[in-house]
Amino acid sequence: MERYEIAVIGTGPAGVSAAITAKIRNKKLLLLGSRELSLKIEKGHLIQNYPGLPAISGPQLADAMKKHLEAMDIAITDERVNAVYAMGDYFALQMAEGMYEAETVILATGVSAAKPFPGEMELLGRGVSYCATCDAPLYHGKTAAVIAYSAHEEAEAEFLAETADKVYYLPQYPEAPHLKAGIEVVKAKPLSISEENGLRRLSTDNGDIAVNGVFILRESVAPGQLVPGLATEGSRVAVNREMATNIAGCFACGDVVGLPYQYIKSAGEGNVAALSAVNYLDAKHRAARG
Amino acid sequence: MERYEIAVIGTGPAGVSAAITAKIRNKKLLLLGSRELSLKIEKGHLIQNYPGLPAISGPQLADAMKKHLEAMDIAITDERVNAVYAMGDYFALQMAEGMYEAETVILATGVSAAKPFPGEMELLGRGVSYCATCDAPLYHGKTAAVIAYSAHEEAEAEFLAETADKVYYLPQYPEAPHLKAGIEVVKAKPLSISEENGLRRLSTDNGDIAVNGVFILRESVAPGQLVPGLATEGSRVAVNREMATNIAGCFACGDVVGLPYQYIKSAGEGNVAALSAVNYLDAKHRAARG
Repeated sequence: MERYEIAVIGTGPAGVSAAITAKIRNKKLLLLGSRELSLKIEKGHLIQNYPGLPAISGPQLADAMKKHLEAMDIAITDERVNAVYAMGDYFALQMAEGMYEAETVILATGVSAAKPFPGEMELLGRGVSYCATCDAPLYHGKTAAVIAYSAHEEAEAEFLAETADKVYYLPQYPEAPHLKAGIEVVKAKPLSISEENGLRRLSTDNGDIAVNGVFILRESVAPGQLVPGLATEGSRVAVNREMATNIAGCFACGDVVGLPYQYIKSAGEGNVAALSAVNYLDAKHRAARG
Repeated sequence: MERYEIAVIGTGPAGVSAAITAKIRNKKLLLLGSRELSLKIEKGHLIQNYPGLPAISGPQLADAMKKHLEAMDIAITDERVNAVYAMGDYFALQMAEGMYEAETVILATGVSAAKPFPGEMELLGRGVSYCATCDAPLYHGKTAAVIAYSAHEEAEAEFLAETADKVYYLPQYPEAPHLKAGIEVVKAKPLSISEENGLRRLSTDNGDIAVNGVFILRESVAPGQLVPGLATEGSRVAVNREMATNIAGCFACGDVVGLPYQYIKSAGEGNVAALSAVNYLDAKHRAARG
């Protein structure tokens, strides 16, 4: 399998900045994230404190960053990472389909405003899942509910429906879903998840649904969930001034490492994380040469 | 005396970023530094990793930052700070002429490539000085040498010459100095400073000069010298992830806090330092209200 030197997860200002610096340093780079970059930037109104770009809108900043990536010939791989496993010498990135391998990983996944639903964490792995593609085989002849936060997830629900007997789809976004026949769209806000008689009860503001499993497909997974063994302080990833986490070869930057949530702070940290990854790779390769 | 809420020292990317964010947060701001911003930026060739501004030159980045300051109506006070004293409740900034007061200080003074001359640190305060205007009164009827790293220092030398009996001027910059008559320009590279028979001997590659005092006027003073009591690690200012130094109310950002020396890293840190200063001020003012 092709092994990357640096995998950057996230295409907000931190991830974009890390990718740019990694590319300049001629590292074999995998940039994973949305081709639309950060939803948060896209929605940003007036940004006044990104030095050098006075008084620009969020979409303008996103556009400037997209152009910068294009100018440097950096491609975005628009796939979701479900888990990152530290394998000692490298990292295995479990994707919706297949795997990637990378010597270092830079987490730039941002923060999700979403709090887990009551019952979500307790039932995770026991009828609650974040990855329909991964767990679909478990749902032969069974029923499932999919809570989806973007239209991206419609393909996941359709894939699940090929296996499962019945799929309820709860879109948490404004657009009308376009789904194959056989998937039941339920307009409802989820409230909690509980266990009942071997089933999972998904309570919503529009009644309860009893299913075998609940899939929650958010924009981002909590970093502690994404990378088993990663040290966090509350919801943020713990890093030092080099943006190194507790796992050798794993770095983090941007909102995921904590306040303040500012574009220029994230961009600065992305740069530092990339250079730290470069230093780590250089030291490792020197040691390997003996 | 007018007391500022935030004094930012330095007009490189860290200082500019800190000033922009402080201004957005409506703090009473003093921005001290060169109106030409950073010499290092001005000399920068191609900058590829400042996200959003692909492939720009150093002068273009400096120009973009100047325009950003102008757009936000942030003035630069182009004066040199000789020392910053923590007075408990506020900081006193000793300038070439007069003082400023500020509740918080953000150090963004960059790094100076200059190493001290042999003998410089040993004789500092005993015949070696960094401020001609401050110490000129001590030189009535005496002789002094001025080692100057920019044409800015010519005014300092002329002020000193009004008091001193004899001034030697050693320009360390390419332009020809424009000085009043009576100041002797010596084309020489300083090598070391020593004590001899109650005088200071300045050794150069063009012979030795015996004087009462040697003034060394560099672009920037080492941060440990600038702020008595400031904790440093080697040559860099020690900070935590909030960019706070060991002195309450004193923050630092950019090259002065260490590697990597990168524009975007400095700009990001300036933003964090300013927001930390804002938090410090808010907490202090809340406590004062009781």
